[in-house]
Amino acid sequence: MAQTEEASKTAGKPIRCRAAVARKAGEPLVIEEITVAPPKARELRVRVLCSALCFSDIHFWRLEEPHGYYPRIFGHETVGVVESVGEGIEDVKVGDTVIPSFLAYCGECPDCTSIKSNQCSKLRFELSPYIRDGTSRFSDAKGETIYHFGYTSGFSEYTVVDITHVTKVDPAIPPSKACLLGCGVSTGVGAAWKTADVEAGSTVAIFGLGVIGLAVAEGARLRGAKTIIGVDLNPDKVEIGKKFGITHFINPKELGGKPASEVILGMTDGLGADYCFECVGLPSLSQEAFACCRKGWGKTIILGVDKPDSKFILNSLVNNHSGKTITGVQYGGLKPNIDIAILGKRHLDKELQLDLFVTHEIKLEDINKAFKLLIEGKCLRTVIWMDQERASADGVTFNEL
Amino acid sequence: MAQTEEASKTAGKPIRCRAAVARKAGEPLVIEEITVAPPKARELRVRVLCSALCFSDIHFWRLEEPHGYYPRIFGHETVGVVESVGEGIEDVKVGDTVIPSFLAYCGECPDCTSIKSNQCSKLRFELSPYIRDGTSRFSDAKGETIYHFGYTSGFSEYTVVDITHVTKVDPAIPPSKACLLGCGVSTGVGAAWKTADVEAGSTVAIFGLGVIGLAVAEGARLRGAKTIIGVDLNPDKVEIGKKFGITHFINPKELGGKPASEVILGMTDGLGADYCFECVGLPSLSQEAFACCRKGWGKTIILGVDKPDSKFILNSLVNNHSGKTITGVQYGGLKPNIDIAILGKRHLDKELQLDLFVTHEIKLEDINKAFKLLIEGKCLRTVIWMDQERASADGVTFNEL
Repeated sequence: MAQTEEASKTAGKPIRCRAAVARKAGEPLVIEEITVAPPKARELRVRVLCSALCFSDIHFWRLEEPHGYYPRIFGHETVGVVESVGEGIEDVKVGDTVIPSFLAYCGECPDCTSIKSNQCSKLRFELSPYIRDGTSRFSDAKGETIYHFGYTSGFSEYTVVDITHVTKVDPAIPPSKACLLGCGVSTGVGAAWKTADVEAGSTVAIFGLGVIGLAVAEGARLRGAKTIIGVDLNPDKVEIGKKFGITHFINPKELGGKPASEVILGMTDGLGADYCFECVGLPSLSQEAFACCRKGWGKTIILGVDKPDSKFILNSLVNNHSGKTITGVQYGGLKPNIDIAILGKRHLDKELQLDLFVTHEIKLEDINKAFKLLIEGKCLRTVIWMDQERASADGVTFNEL
Repeated sequence: MAQTEEASKTAGKPIRCRAAVARKAGEPLVIEEITVAPPKARELRVRVLCSALCFSDIHFWRLEEPHGYYPRIFGHETVGVVESVGEGIEDVKVGDTVIPSFLAYCGECPDCTSIKSNQCSKLRFELSPYIRDGTSRFSDAKGETIYHFGYTSGFSEYTVVDITHVTKVDPAIPPSKACLLGCGVSTGVGAAWKTADVEAGSTVAIFGLGVIGLAVAEGARLRGAKTIIGVDLNPDKVEIGKKFGITHFINPKELGGKPASEVILGMTDGLGADYCFECVGLPSLSQEAFACCRKGWGKTIILGVDKPDSKFILNSLVNNHSGKTITGVQYGGLKPNIDIAILGKRHLDKELQLDLFVTHEIKLEDINKAFKLLIEGKCLRTVIWMDQERASADGVTFNEL
């Protein structure tokens, strides 16, 4: 009720609030007071509780033209509470807890109405600097436009999202865990669950143990995989990996030049792993993954984001009629509007270990430290709290960085 | 009973008979009298009724070392009657009608016991010049060894096959149709049926309308595909294609340099075909197929046999997380020991149009004319009859070439 009353005071009016604004490619974000316009028809304004920093934010924050737009508000792993709604919104109401998603769901196109696709063909995913209608709801103190990012822009106390980019979730899920479902963790878990459809007793190989790779392990663990092989250059991942079910660890630095794929073939009687995941974004690793993928039925799934002009070369392997398949998916093949709620429930049921991904929790004003931590590979997920009252209520102890 | 008595006279003894022997790479076959040794344990000797000529025979017949072995007996689309059996054979008896297969089925390995694979991991497919045990059952008039091909060697009046390479079929299937199930037609139909699992109402694109491509169309037609697009340089394929359900024909020569993939995207609202098949063996065509494959769920299936060192390059397409998959399969993903019988039944049920693939029927002595016809693209399948009495009984009129 309190939230509904709060809404009644601000609904339809611009809101002034704090946000972390990226003013230039690769430069520290600036905490500024911005103005967030009210939602238009079929839009929601969301009071952000917290957001986590994903490597894709860093990837795009580093980009100059043509994909770099500044000033811009990043952040796409976010959870918040609906502050007000535009016209034509029926399914979501003020006070609902929601997760914005970079993938849209129109609900009508062949992709949205099929269980096989998560790529809405009416509202395609693009590297747009705007909300879905092609305009911005953010402006700075001088009244200049601030660009959106990924249809989400969670590094702000308030954001506006299109109804096609939002999913209602159970408010019982702690916000610092719920926000993770917006991108990386869901991508990894989803790839094991939906795209690979990992079978109990199977063998999984994961190339790259960042959050996505560890989430693949978590998904494979939940599916009952027997052997989960993790490949990473960082020896710290051995202990972290175990928590997510990784049974065998390979550090390519310790192989004396032998490819990891050969080691994996050796571990599997020369047959290969049933499911191989590339979680870095290097075509050479995709080739490695495919090389040690099980003949007859193996699936290689590419999750890493590579450079736009990179080439993926198969040395006549597909052509050798091996029966292996290779695929690249977005968001692990999950449909946000359906699957985020399912993953949230599995966390509440104490199955999906979202907690383990949260290594740091900080205040908005410390956001640049989160960038530094992730770039240096010293964290999994740092959760950035916009709503510090809620953080206190949740018993969060902020990390000193 | 006649066949059983015949067996009693020849069982356990060498048989002298006629065969078409390839003496040198790329040179005309020679009709010779050869000796076929009796089957060893777990082997069958088969009186061949007829065999069809597949392009893979020509592919390997052209090869010098290391994959060229001469003298050799080619032929791997074959049907025959069991003349005698070695020790330890229980499931197949003298007089049974059988189709030899280049793929083995051990029945015990993880692949044979899984519905997902047709690539026996115990008895792997290799370009071996011998029967499964690593020796030959063929010798020429001078007593010199003649090599086997594809574990089948059907261009002989008698051949010996390992029990793991043979499937029993309904003798009611006319031999000139049954033999087709050994390779090309099954590969195409199987790729549409088992590998792609084509759905009713879907859109299929087929690159290359040789027998395999036309068989893909036939498989897609049987699965209820709504739109079947055929791509071929030969305008004669327009009319032939219609018989197999091809609804749209694209001749790349008539596109003024525009890629066929763009035309297919244009025909599908920019979305692409649900299932794309490469049936030639050119990496560039595989790339074309993948380029016009449906985002979100499209499958690209590579059936063509390319050169051993060829490279397949995806221009960051898989990496773009399109949700498309690409795979390369052998024998269309079919398990010979199970699926040949099913395809045979579908022919007897007047569903699978095997008849349309048989464009010529000839006598063994005319076999070199069959090679010429296929090389010149002037036939689909030429059936070569070893058992001319049976051909007469079946009312076959041999083609004058």
